[in-house]
Amino acid sequence: MKNYDIGDHPIVFGASPNPNKSKPTYLFYGHYDVQPPDPTELWEFNPFEPRILNRGGKQVIHGRGSSDDKGQILTFFEACRSFLNIHKELPFNLKVLIEGEEECGSPSTSEFLKENKNLLTCDYALICDTGFEQGRPSIFTMLRGEVSLKIKIKAATTDLHSGLYGGAATNPIKALSSIINNIHDKNGRIQIPNFYDDVISLNKNQKEQWAALNFDEKKFLNDVGLSSSAGEKHYSIIENLWSRPSCEITGISGGYTGKGFKTIIPAEAFANVSLRLVKDQNPEKIKACFRNFVRNMLPNDCKVSFIEGFGTRASVVSSKSKIISVAKEALIEEWGVAPILAGAGASIPIVTDLKDILGVDSLLIGFGKDEDNIHAPNEQYELESFFKGANTWARILEKLKLN
Amino acid sequence: MKNYDIGDHPIVFGASPNPNKSKPTYLFYGHYDVQPPDPTELWEFNPFEPRILNRGGKQVIHGRGSSDDKGQILTFFEACRSFLNIHKELPFNLKVLIEGEEECGSPSTSEFLKENKNLLTCDYALICDTGFEQGRPSIFTMLRGEVSLKIKIKAATTDLHSGLYGGAATNPIKALSSIINNIHDKNGRIQIPNFYDDVISLNKNQKEQWAALNFDEKKFLNDVGLSSSAGEKHYSIIENLWSRPSCEITGISGGYTGKGFKTIIPAEAFANVSLRLVKDQNPEKIKACFRNFVRNMLPNDCKVSFIEGFGTRASVVSSKSKIISVAKEALIEEWGVAPILAGAGASIPIVTDLKDILGVDSLLIGFGKDEDNIHAPNEQYELESFFKGANTWARILEKLKLN
Repeated sequence: MKNYDIGDHPIVFGASPNPNKSKPTYLFYGHYDVQPPDPTELWEFNPFEPRILNRGGKQVIHGRGSSDDKGQILTFFEACRSFLNIHKELPFNLKVLIEGEEECGSPSTSEFLKENKNLLTCDYALICDTGFEQGRPSIFTMLRGEVSLKIKIKAATTDLHSGLYGGAATNPIKALSSIINNIHDKNGRIQIPNFYDDVISLNKNQKEQWAALNFDEKKFLNDVGLSSSAGEKHYSIIENLWSRPSCEITGISGGYTGKGFKTIIPAEAFANVSLRLVKDQNPEKIKACFRNFVRNMLPNDCKVSFIEGFGTRASVVSSKSKIISVAKEALIEEWGVAPILAGAGASIPIVTDLKDILGVDSLLIGFGKDEDNIHAPNEQYELESFFKGANTWARILEKLKLN
Repeated sequence: MKNYDIGDHPIVFGASPNPNKSKPTYLFYGHYDVQPPDPTELWEFNPFEPRILNRGGKQVIHGRGSSDDKGQILTFFEACRSFLNIHKELPFNLKVLIEGEEECGSPSTSEFLKENKNLLTCDYALICDTGFEQGRPSIFTMLRGEVSLKIKIKAATTDLHSGLYGGAATNPIKALSSIINNIHDKNGRIQIPNFYDDVISLNKNQKEQWAALNFDEKKFLNDVGLSSSAGEKHYSIIENLWSRPSCEITGISGGYTGKGFKTIIPAEAFANVSLRLVKDQNPEKIKACFRNFVRNMLPNDCKVSFIEGFGTRASVVSSKSKIISVAKEALIEEWGVAPILAGAGASIPIVTDLKDILGVDSLLIGFGKDEDNIHAPNEQYELESFFKGANTWARILEKLKLN
């Protein structure tokens, strides 16, 4: 194992010391970075002090990153450790890449891949950073892409007294609210010009396959305290999440919201935006559409500036390769149920990079659950996911050995 | 002088030890509390370390509260000190009340006035907490009232991953933006039902008087980096600020806006609202109208709760009393220009209380300038305001002695 100091957080890379040229090479990928823990006051325990708890009748590992992605990574490592104890060698040449910038779009990892193609050469990538769908193990073959950006709207040169200027001065919070309010029409359709240009309609086959999953929309929403879909009308939730782009405001701030009241008209207001993309939508084009949309909606006396986060295309991997059928069998044997060949609403930018830069597809399995609270307070990972996840990988290794 | 421990911050009260029953009694009112200093990083120097600077070609006192209201209070005290040095006694019985909760609506001071009517009995109140209008000394006879409240909109039970839920889950920032966007119509008129019920149209006379002031709207806006009025169309800026109610969002927050990006759909979003009221608008009725407006606009899956700050009626004081004509003369002599009989957009809740509880009108003069940055970083008070302000009060005292 070796640390590569690239970007703000080093990449950890390791490889089988004496690769066997007659065997295939698999690259296992995971990430050790996590989302910020705040609001920290909502955590039951220190987010960075792992502990095993009984929560909701289940044994879980509590802690930031327990599910996304540290616990998941360990399922693979534990399987390899057991396998090596018995068989002394793995059924493939293994390379491992654990990065520290997944949660901010893997900007340095892309560079690392580009600069170290030879080091990373492999036949297939294995990734354990996904979860179950409807309580069923799943193999993800479609992932949405993402564009993120920050908007800053500035009006007056300084904060103004809301009594002395209220009813005369332009309020940037009002300008920002108007822009946000106009992103979607009443049917949930995004009104940014040219936004849907490269969005392909779902084919009938796929639509029927997904409908057959009998996805429990009510439960999906109820589990998080909601009752009705806020997505595009005329699309099911699964269709919205897996095949339709979205635009969410992930944060907003401006003026004073501390204790008590401060009677000001603020000079500035900020919003963070996350646009989820589907196949063929180009991140750069979408960013340009978004910027134009905002600029065209700006009222007089407001200026806008943008800080761009990252942009990744959506990715679709072939569901016909050997490793995917092996994974299917292993999942059936371990969990007693056929896995779903699913799409996912969330981005894993590395999957696009692995395809674009190294030319390899990825097997995406994982054992996260909806209740894991990833990216939120009280993140957890079920002990069952941990143990049966490790068993699943062990079964995959066994099958690859026999094949 | 004595501190009265009432509410969160004590009231400082003092009175002439041996009142002369043949003289009138004046109550001087000021406040020692200030607005929060943040964003502290925008201050040139420590907000709480006063210092004299040359800023924009003028000698100024820099510091939080230098203008609002500590510097202003001292103009009166310095005049009294000089007057006492020469004449040994003031031309009236003086009572002084300095409170510490003006910036949050004087809730305890109201109680204090109610419980200590005998202690506070007086003929007129003197207040030094206002400023110049268009570079001219002004006597304020109309003040807008204020209602402030905090809105919290809650959707899901926890923050959600924007990839896993984006395009399905209700986003409370979007709901809040929609509400804010609908407060005003395109002409700047507030669309809250019944909001204007008790708003009286400006009479022709008043309208003409104010028009004659030749208020420089362009300069007023340019001074703070703006170019056009965001208030109600068909009303001048002075009319908007002095005679029309307003509704401003003074702060907004929700989700993640720290460094980098956090891909969440937040569970909650918050806004702080300040409504400025004019004569006859009832704060309780306006609060109820606002709450109903928000509730009626809530989308499915959103809940709203309100934290109410404070509510004060607008106040209008008679411009015909002796003290006001004395103040007019003193201002003309000291500053060489006739004062404006003005309205003010900002509330001084104590003025309403003084009228309602003690039955007295207030003389409202002050020497603050637009450039003072009150409630904002780099608050200042001009040395000229300090010295000539004290002289103005000294002239008022001399005139009252002769009368």
